[in-house]
Amino acid sequence: MTRSALSHLGDQGDVRMVDVSSKKVTQRSATAEALVFLPPPVLALFENGDLQGPKGPVFQIARIAGIQAAKRTGELIPLCHPIGLDSIELTFSIKKNEVYILASARVEAKTGVEMEALTAASVAALTIYDMCKAVSHEIEIRAIRLLEKTGGKNDFKRN
Amino acid sequence: MTRSALSHLGDQGDVRMVDVSSKKVTQRSATAEALVFLPPPVLALFENGDLQGPKGPVFQIARIAGIQAAKRTGELIPLCHPIGLDSIELTFSIKKNEVYILASARVEAKTGVEMEALTAASVAALTIYDMCKAVSHEIEIRAIRLLEKTGGKNDFKRN
Amino acid sequence: MTRSALSHLGDQGDVRMVDVSSKKVTQRSATAEALVFLPPPVLALFENGDLQGPKGPVFQIARIAGIQAAKRTGELIPLCHPIGLDSIELTFSIKKNEVYILASARVEAKTGVEMEALTAASVAALTIYDMCKAVSHEIEIRAIRLLEKTGGKNDFKRN
Amino acid sequence: MTRSALSHLGDQGDVRMVDVSSKKVTQRSATAEALVFLPPPVLALFENGDLQGPKGPVFQIARIAGIQAAKRTGELIPLCHPIGLDSIELTFSIKKNEVYILASARVEAKTGVEMEALTAASVAALTIYDMCKAVSHEIEIRAIRLLEKTGGKNDFKRN
Amino acid sequence: MTRSALSHLGDQGDVRMVDVSSKKVTQRSATAEALVFLPPPVLALFENGDLQGPKGPVFQIARIAGIQAAKRTGELIPLCHPIGLDSIELTFSIKKNEVYILASARVEAKTGVEMEALTAASVAALTIYDMCKAVSHEIEIRAIRLLEKTGGKNDFKRN
Amino acid sequence: MTRSALSHLGDQGDVRMVDVSSKKVTQRSATAEALVFLPPPVLALFENGDLQGPKGPVFQIARIAGIQAAKRTGELIPLCHPIGLDSIELTFSIKKNEVYILASARVEAKTGVEMEALTAASVAALTIYDMCKAVSHEIEIRAIRLLEKTGGKNDFKRN
Repeated sequence: MTRSALSHLGDQGDVRMVDVSSKKVTQRSATAEALVFLPPPVLALFENGDLQGPKGPVFQIARIAGIQAAKRTGELIPLCHPIGLDSIELTFSIKKNEVYILASARVEAKTGVEMEALTAASVAALTIYDMCKAVSHEIEIRAIRLLEKTGGKNDFKRN
Repeated sequence: MTRSALSHLGDQGDVRMVDVSSKKVTQRSATAEALVFLPPPVLALFENGDLQGPKGPVFQIARIAGIQAAKRTGELIPLCHPIGLDSIELTFSIKKNEVYILASARVEAKTGVEMEALTAASVAALTIYDMCKAVSHEIEIRAIRLLEKTGGKNDFKRN
Repeated sequence: MTRSALSHLGDQGDVRMVDVSSKKVTQRSATAEALVFLPPPVLALFENGDLQGPKGPVFQIARIAGIQAAKRTGELIPLCHPIGLDSIELTFSIKKNEVYILASARVEAKTGVEMEALTAASVAALTIYDMCKAVSHEIEIRAIRLLEKTGGKNDFKRN
Repeated sequence: MTRSALSHLGDQGDVRMVDVSSKKVTQRSATAEALVFLPPPVLALFENGDLQGPKGPVFQIARIAGIQAAKRTGELIPLCHPIGLDSIELTFSIKKNEVYILASARVEAKTGVEMEALTAASVAALTIYDMCKAVSHEIEIRAIRLLEKTGGKNDFKRN
Repeated sequence: MTRSALSHLGDQGDVRMVDVSSKKVTQRSATAEALVFLPPPVLALFENGDLQGPKGPVFQIARIAGIQAAKRTGELIPLCHPIGLDSIELTFSIKKNEVYILASARVEAKTGVEMEALTAASVAALTIYDMCKAVSHEIEIRAIRLLEKTGGKNDFKRN
Repeated sequence: MTRSALSHLGDQGDVRMVDVSSKKVTQRSATAEALVFLPPPVLALFENGDLQGPKGPVFQIARIAGIQAAKRTGELIPLCHPIGLDSIELTFSIKKNEVYILASARVEAKTGVEMEALTAASVAALTIYDMCKAVSHEIEIRAIRLLEKTGGKNDFKRN
């Protein structure tokens, strides 16, 4: 039962996970960023390199949330492949009135970890929101985007 | 602590995941089918290659549900190995008064994707039921079965 | 931001989880069945009220798989509500050359447990397949359907 | 063993899920938005009210992903309570060079669904990225934020 | 299809989730403890009220792991009911050469949170092991047990 | 964006999953044990090599719970890598007034399965508690520890 044999069965067949069965296993990496705007009352929680939010140290928890989410990317994003992860790393810093989140992922696989890095950054950002929302609902997640990726057909590096 | 050393510990030890540690990684594929009987009021929802159910386009959603379920087969079926997936693909067509679902999976692994294809077809069928049940509860899932598999000790092809 | 205010935003808005926010919490129940055809070599494994499959006692494991799947129905079926479960129960019996699975679910909620009962029966059936597939790939899941449900707007009882 | 009795045990005890055991069950709602910037080659995929991406119709799949993610918010965000959902709804529209995502959630519970609406919008946005990334990596998720919420101690409405 | 009607179908029907459909919703609480023995090289990592392990501050991460696991108790323990959680709280302290973990859970439901408290304590203990295992494999988890529970048919308090 | 380039961004960056991207894939194994103390009324349930608890045969269900939990170790333990499993096996025996649980795991991967074996043993122990807690709350989980592991930088064997 080949793919072409199946293809006459219905023209709704356009939703698909990309077939990576003939791709080679290579070392893959990806780095994504997210910015989280902090209004003044949240910014005032900054102390000792972390936000001390009403539910606890914010970046610590957001990092764990991002790591855990990266591992479950294939469950969250419908057409992502389920793959392992050799490494996932998040860092947080305050720049003016924004938290700057960097998420980097690595794996040795047939497909890349771009969505893993983006998902880690996004869920870390959501966790920052959650941990500070008792202080302000004006927190805003901004500029989630890919910075670079390597190991696939084409590398990418944002200018 | 070898398996034989453990084996004297209790005779309830017969439930087991098959040990695949000494098996070779090969290209594996499997295709399964499911039929879903549609009573006339549900059949009347067919339009533009999909059922237009009360909750939305049925095959579109069922396909996503099947893809997502295939990725979680190891969580659903107790003694299945957790493996990745290189490809999972579902097609839907109407044959007389039944939806005909085909699910094909591929992976490069020590064990096959037979359960992944069957699980995808089954959860797609359940989703069709869910999306049309406000119209009729007479929908019936029928004939979930393996059509073929390749890459293991023995290939299989249903006559 | 009311639903009507949102509704002009796009005509793809037809996929939806039913809004149950104004429904009353009632006692709900549902019972579903599934049949699993067993070819002779699998049927020969029947002993002491269970199939003694190559991976262990089949109905025992299938029951657990069905119970576990019922609890995760909202994760598997895209437009199902996430609800609790007060009770989920599966029984298995051999009738001629088929396993007859009955799955009954109960909950006190705004929406019913029809999909929970059907999902439990389906995943139990898939588990039977998985546990006996080393013996035969001719096993076939048949006739997954709702038998009755109570507690919603309309009760249902299959004739 | 009261909370105060526990509190002497360590000063790292500042990470906490808010105790809602004495709060009243009320009707809660929340609406969040997300913007996704689309570079010209992705914008050119717009047709019939949806983006026709390389993996299929984008908004359809993103909506399912958002609904599914909303149901799992308590698993993704470490200090969120696990709650049910009476309703979750997402709409998508194109405004100039951005997709505008609106996510609305409802529940009857002791705590609100703000994180559920934000998580749904975020995962829908990530899915749009995933489904179009073969066309451009310049896609950027912007401005994920709460628009309004009702039913808690204080309502919120963004100006 | 009543339970008694089902009961003749097979005598393997003894595995069951307790049917709580006729039980009353009450306030429930449970507290569990776990001890984790730390060999000297791990004990030497203690500083500022936490172990500073090779992967980061240990109690912080273990607390999150315990909270997250408590929310998923119904997925981990086959015959547990899926319920919400109003509160889950973990504290950690060093007593001689052991970490003393206390986990307290609350919910308003038909069934209790004993397994949630025990699961939280256990997974927190496993996380302590994981975060320090590069220092020593002699870490040992000891004495996971219930301290008290309230709100069910019988309260329990360990002497 | 190298790790060193990231490292200036914040000194909270000490929480990390170990980067295994440059490690070799090898055959890995690990065996863990757990003891569960049974008070006399629970011990009296022992019959035919299993405890016949109020919810069903205890070791059977505990074994499935342990297998299922092993597959989800990466979801439960925050800084564990998500890996597959070639084999996971649990045995149970009664020694005096304790259940002795042995869990052995195997995989061919860049990192080991120590946490998988320990998690399997722990969740099996919790399941024994759950299935017998209606008889006594004095059940106590004791001595969860690693017995041996092979395939990593250093093998380990408990004396």
